[in-house]
Amino acid sequence: MTIAEELAKRVVTTRYEDLTQRAIEYAKIGVLDTFGVGIAGSVDEAAVIARRVSGTEAGAALVWGTPERTGALRAAFLNGIAANVLDYDDCTDNLGGHPSSPVLPALIALAEQRHASGRDLLTAYVAGFEVETNLGRGVNFHHYEKGWHPTATLGVFGTAAACARLLQLNEAQTTRALALCASLAAGVKSNLGSMAKPMHVGNSSRSGLLAALLAADGFTGNADALEHPQGFLQVFNGAGTYSIERILEKWGTPWEIEMPGIAIKQYPCCLSTQSAIDLMIGLVKEHDVRADAVAGVDARVPALRLEHTNRPQPRSALDAKLSIQYVLARALSNRAVSLPHFEGDAYQDANIQRAMKLVDAQPFDEPMLNELGASGAVIVLRLKDGRQLAGKIRRPIGHEPGVPLPSDLVKAKFQVCVSRRLSPKQMADLYDSVQEFERVADVRRFTACFEAAQAAPVRLAG
Amino acid sequence: MTIAEELAKRVVTTRYEDLTQRAIEYAKIGVLDTFGVGIAGSVDEAAVIARRVSGTEAGAALVWGTPERTGALRAAFLNGIAANVLDYDDCTDNLGGHPSSPVLPALIALAEQRHASGRDLLTAYVAGFEVETNLGRGVNFHHYEKGWHPTATLGVFGTAAACARLLQLNEAQTTRALALCASLAAGVKSNLGSMAKPMHVGNSSRSGLLAALLAADGFTGNADALEHPQGFLQVFNGAGTYSIERILEKWGTPWEIEMPGIAIKQYPCCLSTQSAIDLMIGLVKEHDVRADAVAGVDARVPALRLEHTNRPQPRSALDAKLSIQYVLARALSNRAVSLPHFEGDAYQDANIQRAMKLVDAQPFDEPMLNELGASGAVIVLRLKDGRQLAGKIRRPIGHEPGVPLPSDLVKAKFQVCVSRRLSPKQMADLYDSVQEFERVADVRRFTACFEAAQAAPVRLAG
Repeated sequence: MTIAEELAKRVVTTRYEDLTQRAIEYAKIGVLDTFGVGIAGSVDEAAVIARRVSGTEAGAALVWGTPERTGALRAAFLNGIAANVLDYDDCTDNLGGHPSSPVLPALIALAEQRHASGRDLLTAYVAGFEVETNLGRGVNFHHYEKGWHPTATLGVFGTAAACARLLQLNEAQTTRALALCASLAAGVKSNLGSMAKPMHVGNSSRSGLLAALLAADGFTGNADALEHPQGFLQVFNGAGTYSIERILEKWGTPWEIEMPGIAIKQYPCCLSTQSAIDLMIGLVKEHDVRADAVAGVDARVPALRLEHTNRPQPRSALDAKLSIQYVLARALSNRAVSLPHFEGDAYQDANIQRAMKLVDAQPFDEPMLNELGASGAVIVLRLKDGRQLAGKIRRPIGHEPGVPLPSDLVKAKFQVCVSRRLSPKQMADLYDSVQEFERVADVRRFTACFEAAQAAPVRLAG
Repeated sequence: MTIAEELAKRVVTTRYEDLTQRAIEYAKIGVLDTFGVGIAGSVDEAAVIARRVSGTEAGAALVWGTPERTGALRAAFLNGIAANVLDYDDCTDNLGGHPSSPVLPALIALAEQRHASGRDLLTAYVAGFEVETNLGRGVNFHHYEKGWHPTATLGVFGTAAACARLLQLNEAQTTRALALCASLAAGVKSNLGSMAKPMHVGNSSRSGLLAALLAADGFTGNADALEHPQGFLQVFNGAGTYSIERILEKWGTPWEIEMPGIAIKQYPCCLSTQSAIDLMIGLVKEHDVRADAVAGVDARVPALRLEHTNRPQPRSALDAKLSIQYVLARALSNRAVSLPHFEGDAYQDANIQRAMKLVDAQPFDEPMLNELGASGAVIVLRLKDGRQLAGKIRRPIGHEPGVPLPSDLVKAKFQVCVSRRLSPKQMADLYDSVQEFERVADVRRFTACFEAAQAAPVRLAG
């Protein structure tokens, strides 16, 4: 059997009853969080431009953050862009990227078109997640380091698998859907830092859905399209840089979505700054520290993180998302780092500019790296009264394998993301609905709640 | 300046007045031939499936071979598939693929949407052709041999350039359109021989148009997306396998579309069989040979051609397209090799099966290869009356650099391709219109002629 055939066989036989309670819990977190960041991202310029140029087709699938319904392929493209554009969407270790922003926009659009149930959607999502991350286990981190954007190049396979499962395709059809993905995978890192990045994700979501729809209707691809000498593994990675064994060595037990699970970003900025922010907010809250009581901040993070986050004077809102100095100044002063801090000229706030000057960012020494690893942080707050408050952290909360973000924090993030779109009552209803997503009979009726969103672009609450 | 900036500057400044008469003539051949093979291909199963699953948007752009008009992006996708699916579309040396089937479907759809003129379309087409082929000069043939499908992976840049020119984008916008293509390029050879192959082309056409539309509306990409260490050249090709100098060393003088120009396939089968067919038809016509007068056929072609065309017993119509024995039997018996010969079970025709047994196909010896090159053929017909008729050929007619296919053969191919869709009067009108394409005021009115096409799938004339 080829790789596509092996994966197809597993996708086709995955049933809701095979999911663990923890996999279902994580999947519901993914659905809630992806909706949230997608609605927040829908007002971003990249999402707005994409809506303008991508046609006008009417259909059953909601364009998140708007009252518009459109064709499933267009919705997958637009919602994929919106879900990824803020770089606030979930992550997972083996993928080396964002697992849900390609899969869910396509899967939800398809579910709306077909009146699928929440239970079927969760099953398909877990299967698609397993496909993309198992591929990641086989091709990373060469794939990532070479310059591919795995969220897009691997996400397309996960999306096709998920959509194939929702459509109840048979093994041969699912094989062909996966084979077509070898021809649709795209996205290079040279375009990160531009709107092309979320475009990768929207495109990946649309392409994965397209592959499934084509395969469902008899379109052909070659079953050996992955391992062929001119196939995905050889052409994208190259000889000696991937392992077919690693791709196929597991399926579930545990599901990738439950272990390592989904890491939820608490802060809408660079992944490499999340630990330090978490640690800083913890310190200032625990000791009730006010910014004007601080004489200096010694921040230590791994050198590989500092390399791209050492930006003592950010020059734009986007630049501020990567500035360890800026985000730590925000964490110290506001005890939060949230979306409005990266809008307009918020990064030029005079108080924050003062606080930034307090921050001395340096790389980990070797003992720190050995103790805390590549995602850790150490902070020492030197107070004007002479006291020193020190803390250390290994990973930000919500990023520890198998330890989901506490539900109150998931909920709080969701509320901030959708707050200017929905009333408190609507937010509460929606939140509750996702908690019972496995009992949703028709995903289209579920997304109808989101149609309440106002059409006018809005700023997000502070 | 980056590669994208250099190319953008050249695209932006290309004017109709810069085109040579020969470039315009070749461009009109490309328009006519691409329409023809696209209309013929529109009844193929891959094109029909793609129409069914790709949505229902109404718009200004014609779906070739049907009376339907749809959005430009969808039309580019569908017409790109139709134009390439029969493997009957034009070729050019430096691209290592089909230059027009990605570019023209997008460009024509866009021209229809914008009421552009024939003159503006021809200018944009020549500029896009120059971009994709100059990229080919820089990355081939490693790019091709590694497993990328250049028609798609390079065609997307040509398409974006052409669409950017038609939209009269400025340098910065055109740069961004080309940069986005680094993120949209896709298509691996492991999927050739399946419907994925024409999907590559439809997708490439759609993606190139999307890149131009996004860039026109303010979407961003990084100007160094091609030469960046994690960009198109390094990620797709790899260090030491491409030449930036070769990409940028020329622009026009002559235009790639005039030299080497467009090679027009006379026969709807594998490129590697075209020379031998040409030679065989010439021999049997010149000497008025009937198949039943032949005792044997000694056919000699380069080993690299015979490797994939030595198929003495084809098992399907698609397989027959690659069988040197089958196509030579057709050429001998029918003095033609045309679309109906690859439909249904035509390949099982008893007379043809008998004629196939006469064909002895062997590789070139070294003197033949030295004399005739990698596209040549030698045939000796041994007649029952003891005579021997021998001939040799270097390249099939219409494939010699700078020597276009004679216009009567271009016309005859067009007529066969569209004959069941259009009346003789319509065909003649259309043919004449393309001859004066530079005087077409609005491409939409031009394509309106094609709306006469019947909706029902039809078989093509013999």
